[in-house]
Amino acid sequence: MNVGFAGLGQMGIGMARNLIKAGHQVTGYNRTRSRAEQLAGEGAKVADTPAALADGGIVITMLADDSAVEDVVFGGFIESLPRGGLHVSMSTISVALSQRLAAAHREHGQHYVSAPVFGRPEAAAAAKLFIVAGGPRDQFDRCSDLLSAMGQQTFYLGEEAHRANVVKLSGNFLIAAMLESVGEAVALVRKYGMDPSDYIELMTSTLFTAPVHKNYGALIAKEKYHPAGFRLKLGLKDVRLALAAAESVACPMPVASIMRDHLLTGVARGLEDADWSALAQVVAQNAGLS
Amino acid sequence: MNVGFAGLGQMGIGMARNLIKAGHQVTGYNRTRSRAEQLAGEGAKVADTPAALADGGIVITMLADDSAVEDVVFGGFIESLPRGGLHVSMSTISVALSQRLAAAHREHGQHYVSAPVFGRPEAAAAAKLFIVAGGPRDQFDRCSDLLSAMGQQTFYLGEEAHRANVVKLSGNFLIAAMLESVGEAVALVRKYGMDPSDYIELMTSTLFTAPVHKNYGALIAKEKYHPAGFRLKLGLKDVRLALAAAESVACPMPVASIMRDHLLTGVARGLEDADWSALAQVVAQNAGLS
Amino acid sequence: MNVGFAGLGQMGIGMARNLIKAGHQVTGYNRTRSRAEQLAGEGAKVADTPAALADGGIVITMLADDSAVEDVVFGGFIESLPRGGLHVSMSTISVALSQRLAAAHREHGQHYVSAPVFGRPEAAAAAKLFIVAGGPRDQFDRCSDLLSAMGQQTFYLGEEAHRANVVKLSGNFLIAAMLESVGEAVALVRKYGMDPSDYIELMTSTLFTAPVHKNYGALIAKEKYHPAGFRLKLGLKDVRLALAAAESVACPMPVASIMRDHLLTGVARGLEDADWSALAQVVAQNAGLS
Amino acid sequence: MNVGFAGLGQMGIGMARNLIKAGHQVTGYNRTRSRAEQLAGEGAKVADTPAALADGGIVITMLADDSAVEDVVFGGFIESLPRGGLHVSMSTISVALSQRLAAAHREHGQHYVSAPVFGRPEAAAAAKLFIVAGGPRDQFDRCSDLLSAMGQQTFYLGEEAHRANVVKLSGNFLIAAMLESVGEAVALVRKYGMDPSDYIELMTSTLFTAPVHKNYGALIAKEKYHPAGFRLKLGLKDVRLALAAAESVACPMPVASIMRDHLLTGVARGLEDADWSALAQVVAQNAGLS
Repeated sequence: MNVGFAGLGQMGIGMARNLIKAGHQVTGYNRTRSRAEQLAGEGAKVADTPAALADGGIVITMLADDSAVEDVVFGGFIESLPRGGLHVSMSTISVALSQRLAAAHREHGQHYVSAPVFGRPEAAAAAKLFIVAGGPRDQFDRCSDLLSAMGQQTFYLGEEAHRANVVKLSGNFLIAAMLESVGEAVALVRKYGMDPSDYIELMTSTLFTAPVHKNYGALIAKEKYHPAGFRLKLGLKDVRLALAAAESVACPMPVASIMRDHLLTGVARGLEDADWSALAQVVAQNAGLS
Repeated sequence: MNVGFAGLGQMGIGMARNLIKAGHQVTGYNRTRSRAEQLAGEGAKVADTPAALADGGIVITMLADDSAVEDVVFGGFIESLPRGGLHVSMSTISVALSQRLAAAHREHGQHYVSAPVFGRPEAAAAAKLFIVAGGPRDQFDRCSDLLSAMGQQTFYLGEEAHRANVVKLSGNFLIAAMLESVGEAVALVRKYGMDPSDYIELMTSTLFTAPVHKNYGALIAKEKYHPAGFRLKLGLKDVRLALAAAESVACPMPVASIMRDHLLTGVARGLEDADWSALAQVVAQNAGLS
Repeated sequence: MNVGFAGLGQMGIGMARNLIKAGHQVTGYNRTRSRAEQLAGEGAKVADTPAALADGGIVITMLADDSAVEDVVFGGFIESLPRGGLHVSMSTISVALSQRLAAAHREHGQHYVSAPVFGRPEAAAAAKLFIVAGGPRDQFDRCSDLLSAMGQQTFYLGEEAHRANVVKLSGNFLIAAMLESVGEAVALVRKYGMDPSDYIELMTSTLFTAPVHKNYGALIAKEKYHPAGFRLKLGLKDVRLALAAAESVACPMPVASIMRDHLLTGVARGLEDADWSALAQVVAQNAGLS
Repeated sequence: MNVGFAGLGQMGIGMARNLIKAGHQVTGYNRTRSRAEQLAGEGAKVADTPAALADGGIVITMLADDSAVEDVVFGGFIESLPRGGLHVSMSTISVALSQRLAAAHREHGQHYVSAPVFGRPEAAAAAKLFIVAGGPRDQFDRCSDLLSAMGQQTFYLGEEAHRANVVKLSGNFLIAAMLESVGEAVALVRKYGMDPSDYIELMTSTLFTAPVHKNYGALIAKEKYHPAGFRLKLGLKDVRLALAAAESVACPMPVASIMRDHLLTGVARGLEDADWSALAQVVAQNAGLS
């Protein structure tokens, strides 16, 4: 297929490459043009503007935040995408923006599928992402080959596109809650003089055997918060989006509230560019640990 | 070996049976004598009093709470256990009581190993428990055949017996934190009209693949809180013990504080005998869900 | 002085009347025109549009929320207010909008003073409001006669207009925190069988003697949450604005986070139009009280 | 009357003096005997042991904590106090101990009135304490002259003695909640560059006019946490007792939970002997303020 791709950051570059490998014709756009040009040597076209992405009738967006998506869509391709065209939004954005995009594309006679992903840059490069998708069934089917080229598994959540964003945000909330609670447990055992790595090894070889526990547990035990796999300030953003999504349906999430408070302390203490597992460092500091 | 065993409840009965199967001579004691007599047909002796457990020089305790352990030890076998005797404490008790037991046995010229377990009654019956142990190395070695007969793996945490209790309580805290956070995530997706079982299936087949997530996640999704595998009021007790252990080393655990509050609401609403995963029901009710 | 006044709700109507009584020429605007016409018989002019408010060079806004202020300013008088004109913003709005208004008026060669108020409608009618103001000193002096006509005391907080909004939001946070904590204390004594009115009488005649404690304490003791003096959903809005203001300077406010969660439960349980002291009802329900 | 008085610390010494001034015959006991001897020159007798306090048939206790009261009562005068004798317990103790004392004295044919106080040492010296009392009406009447000599006002809460302890603990909870919330508000305005003393002056001359706000507000604004009027570790003890009292009636108190966490951080950071208003310092540090 002929597809536009906006956002060639750490995640997007791998995803776009996998589309190319799968035989699709990709036109890439990135605010910092050099990143798009990187792909040109691999067979992609480079778009000078977001508006130039829309020729093939399908545009995928994989951008940093709401504001970046608004710029690329409303200030960009929504006017050039033909009636019947499709926007596949894969960024981690707010539920509110996802709802607004669905409405805006509908008004333009276009289609909208929301398809955010779980996975780090390495998973994006290896086409091992998990993708959660929502939107009209026929449009989901229309882009499912594209999604398959980028992920190891796709879950279709029904007609309401924004559900995919709710699930994505809830997933990041669950990871953050794990970081927070493992951080509290590690602070406790450290205060009793135990070695945190031994402790994590014990817990993740018995009760909490998922890779997400093993990998993050090891970072926390070793206090290895640099370089960041996912920056604390982005983690704060996602927790904020989860809280906003919950607020709009009158759903309190007290653990998310605590994490938000701790992440703010992290920012106040200069940890905004540390890995978000540094949430555990805030917890340790609150227990008087260095 | 010749070993006394106090506490033949849901957990203890299976553990004692596994000792018998492994060829050990078990003398059982239970406050409700009929449960001890059950074992008599399988080769065990029955002790009329805790004091009568101490003949073999080793006593294992697997009781409901601090108070039950205090009764059986201080009002029981501590006076009849010979110098050089060993008490292996496997109950989930407070760190403070574990420290007090270590001191009391030392004063009596006796030894103390703390060896609490992770696992439900089925794991106890199947000798699949995980055991975390602390105490003098030679005493740990002395009882390691007994521990091996009851569990699938034993972790030795060093000379300080109470560390084993800290780790046990931290583990139950981590499970409870998982129940709380999954409860919040499920409340969120339910408020967006999604099916909680689909959601749990998705999350536990991608990010959170440990059995502890799958099993508890399914209970929460189906709101199946009866019969209780582990009662909410016992969960509250364990969270309280974790908070007390943390308080004595000046370690705040805000997620534990939240769960304590929610478990109290659970008790106030008559859920004390529901499974402790009903923590998620409190969370759902706080979001206005039935 | 000749002054435009936008927003003749429960608060604004009393404030505008006090300006008229003090001899000022008031031109009133309200989205629901009938409320403006009420004032006409008392000597005010009625503006058909926000743009028509700007003739006198000074416009006061006293509106429900950010969105209403944006409509009246950006979609309204910012284009008709002459260079050198002054906007006195008295609504409870976000710190972010206050900063945006300061910048926008500056770009238009206009001036901006932020002057939100403390007090209920009765205090507005009786010119007993407390006013906190920020903005350029000369502009504050320019409107100080107007402010004096509406309040019992005005506090000038310096050149940065948005500081006044921070103080206003912090004040509402403190009131809400009082509602929450009194609610928790009342739940406790009720669970011990005590009469909440006796308890409030005791506490407010000894330690907590401010009217804000006496008045709200009595509402909580009697569970008299209707009619609302200030609706719970507006309380939630203000707590949200306080949290947003705090977030933008990396300041965690955990008590505000708790209240937000409880207010959301209030909304989920249908209390959005109750008085915001019904925060205490949520707390009572969480303790299993009716 | 002829009365025994145990506990001549900062509070007790002033209270005992006021009894002497009012013409009562006081026999004083203090673990550190020198403090009791101080009173001897003012007309008091000195008891060598708690048991020697009971001659007059009435004993008042004003001690530091549960453990001190247990020592003086169970290891002390409960055996020497005659049948029909009265124990007036004025210390800040747990609800559980108050219930246990009521039962123990009943078993000994003795009476028990619980009468804890609000007020700092200066108020104790000036007979300006507020006293909350519970117990049998006739016994309350029996000691009301004594209470009047020590306080400015006494509130009788009914036959259940422990209610007085609940109210006392709830009052300290409310003060702590005020410290916490004022601390959060002050952190917020400081992060916006405002002077905290100006802010406290503004808030306590408008909305929060009680002395408890003015006095503590000034300490927080000036960060004057030494010398301690009431030490942080005692504040932590009282919050813990409030939480324990609430737990035994299944009453969650989330603001108390937060304060407990923050007070623990205070202890972990070496603030245990600072004034308990240093709770606000923990809050400030969590916002990245020095």
